[in-house]
Amino acid sequence: MEYIRVEGGVCAPKDFFANGLYSQIKQDANKKEDLALIYTPHKAAATGVYTKNKVKGASVSLTKKHLKNMSARCIICNSKNANTCNADGEEKAIAICELVAKELDIKVSDVILAQTGVIGQTLPLKPFTDNIPALVAGLGCDKGELAAKAIMTTDTRKKEIAIKFNLDGKECHIGGIAKGSGMINPNMATMLSFLTTDIRIDPKLLKKALSQATEEYYNMICVDGDTSTNDMVCIMANGAADNTLICQEDNLYEEFCNALNYVCGYLAKEIARDGEGATKLIICKVCGAPTKKGAKEIAKSIIKSSLVKCAFFGNDANWGRILCAMGYAKTDVTLDSVDVSMRNEKNIVTVCRDSAGVPFDEELALEILKGDTVVVDVNLKQGDYTATAFGCDLTYDYVKINGDYRT
Amino acid sequence: MEYIRVEGGVCAPKDFFANGLYSQIKQDANKKEDLALIYTPHKAAATGVYTKNKVKGASVSLTKKHLKNMSARCIICNSKNANTCNADGEEKAIAICELVAKELDIKVSDVILAQTGVIGQTLPLKPFTDNIPALVAGLGCDKGELAAKAIMTTDTRKKEIAIKFNLDGKECHIGGIAKGSGMINPNMATMLSFLTTDIRIDPKLLKKALSQATEEYYNMICVDGDTSTNDMVCIMANGAADNTLICQEDNLYEEFCNALNYVCGYLAKEIARDGEGATKLIICKVCGAPTKKGAKEIAKSIIKSSLVKCAFFGNDANWGRILCAMGYAKTDVTLDSVDVSMRNEKNIVTVCRDSAGVPFDEELALEILKGDTVVVDVNLKQGDYTATAFGCDLTYDYVKINGDYRT
Repeated sequence: MEYIRVEGGVCAPKDFFANGLYSQIKQDANKKEDLALIYTPHKAAATGVYTKNKVKGASVSLTKKHLKNMSARCIICNSKNANTCNADGEEKAIAICELVAKELDIKVSDVILAQTGVIGQTLPLKPFTDNIPALVAGLGCDKGELAAKAIMTTDTRKKEIAIKFNLDGKECHIGGIAKGSGMINPNMATMLSFLTTDIRIDPKLLKKALSQATEEYYNMICVDGDTSTNDMVCIMANGAADNTLICQEDNLYEEFCNALNYVCGYLAKEIARDGEGATKLIICKVCGAPTKKGAKEIAKSIIKSSLVKCAFFGNDANWGRILCAMGYAKTDVTLDSVDVSMRNEKNIVTVCRDSAGVPFDEELALEILKGDTVVVDVNLKQGDYTATAFGCDLTYDYVKINGDYRT
Repeated sequence: MEYIRVEGGVCAPKDFFANGLYSQIKQDANKKEDLALIYTPHKAAATGVYTKNKVKGASVSLTKKHLKNMSARCIICNSKNANTCNADGEEKAIAICELVAKELDIKVSDVILAQTGVIGQTLPLKPFTDNIPALVAGLGCDKGELAAKAIMTTDTRKKEIAIKFNLDGKECHIGGIAKGSGMINPNMATMLSFLTTDIRIDPKLLKKALSQATEEYYNMICVDGDTSTNDMVCIMANGAADNTLICQEDNLYEEFCNALNYVCGYLAKEIARDGEGATKLIICKVCGAPTKKGAKEIAKSIIKSSLVKCAFFGNDANWGRILCAMGYAKTDVTLDSVDVSMRNEKNIVTVCRDSAGVPFDEELALEILKGDTVVVDVNLKQGDYTATAFGCDLTYDYVKINGDYRT
């Protein structure tokens, strides 16, 4: 289903305000924003999904604690320093939440904190003490974009979306921003993404909706197979749309989930497309699987393979590597009747049928592979389950970006 | 323990003969050898370890079948075409074994077949029919090197070793060759490696010795996380050294295992060092683990991380990525008191203590990282188990090599 896009990003839903500024957490000649704030004056239902990495940033543990009551009022996020593996990480994380809470006159436990950047470097507090007053004072309903920029690290462009839809006769909105773009791998909330909505919903249902959207979209992205220490997806629902409270899994809940999926699907694709050094988005659609798990494992194994990713960079229809990657996926699915095709919006070329190569039009394949979005269709022909994974090619620039990130 | 190196590679053990030639499986301006043969006139105890990829080359299935009786007389191997995912792959594999068996006047089931190269392209038989007679006629005890060259694909140099040692008063030998250098990942025999020895040993013990050496060395290499469809490690023991048959796990067996480990350890390191595009060998030694499995998973997770590998390429002591990779390793080991150091033969620099960064000499770290071999020491400080994994950096050249391999 398509939705009506609106401007404003995380500020599109009623009564959400945002801001972003350059606080000098790290010297930056371009003075790119490094501190983001999203705020609502209402007590919002809120929930998060967090990294499964055992080494966790201080922000992850603290936010988990703050969201135990499933309610929040703001999200503060800094880039340029992950505040992870620092002896004083927890202490600093608490201090930042306290600064924000004081300035906004809210409870410390109503602050969601997210941090991203280099691991293991002491986080300076001065940029926060110096800038949080201005960050709060400058909050506006037209500054979602500044927040979207402030959470970027090696991202080449901001990732932002907002939609409107009708629910229960009321105009409702969902807005979202995200940052990639390395360390992106299935099995957790694999990046930062902050979602806002003005619908009224029971926090438990909000949690369920976010979990399934994360499972279906964010956890199906893979850029490099590395699962970060700091990443999270959070949503705040402030109820300003004044719809009847969604408190059971009815049609209204379903409609909200569809809209949320649309937003998360868009952001997931934008993250994959902007994978570090990527020149194209690769979408791998597996169908005909005997189980959902099998479909997912196979889709992820393909999208994760360095060899497959390099082949796409080289515009090489090397389907043998696709079968190879399927072969080491952690699943019991048999692979003796696999069909593989590659397509863009206009054309499709089948390169493998029943697990063996078929002659194909190399010119047409090249044309498809040269595009900025390539869909790989894999049909296992043994069931009804499907899964889609999102990735990108592996390029010289990935190596360049990551060969010298810390300095 | 150090062993005395000798010349001859797989022909160093008594009564082993080899050859390699260019058979034009694929046109090659350099006419690099693409067909290798290793032969012994004696009935040899023989065993193999094979890829765990569910998509298997025809050679893997056939060799498994041939080695059921744990005996063989020769290994034939071609590069340039994996003969995998081809409708007629099995048929062609059988035909090759028949050609070799006929020319050598041995049973077809005494032929070990290995193949490596691109997946899913029809294998021409003509190069085999045209060249196997000459390959057999030219067998020599001084041609181990030609076989070592013939199995190479994107390898930049041959990988070959031979040692001598005393066992039971007899001079014994082990020789070995291997090829890397992409698609190298734990969890199977991740490459081709052929080992020869003149010791007399019960085939079941030979199998056990090979399995543990594979587990400890070959399966601890990771270049790109891709597990190939075709790879195998095989050994033939022809008994020509005339030692008393090793038929139980006694001192003699132990001594043989040590020697075999030495050979496999050398070849594993050579494979990792020559990983596609690599500029350096990275050895990750994990100690203080509560279980062997935990130690292994953590060592492999570090060596496999694209971000860690890029940091090493950039000579960047980015230990945060090392902790991050440990954090998503599939193990329950806790990670709150991890020490990390990096060293070369002369110097060592500790970069992380108790899971937090410590100030370190960046100049010294740079000097260590610039070397062609870097050892990363990780101490978990919670047990006595250790594991070592072998890898390399991720470079522009890896992308270049794999962006256009098929054409």
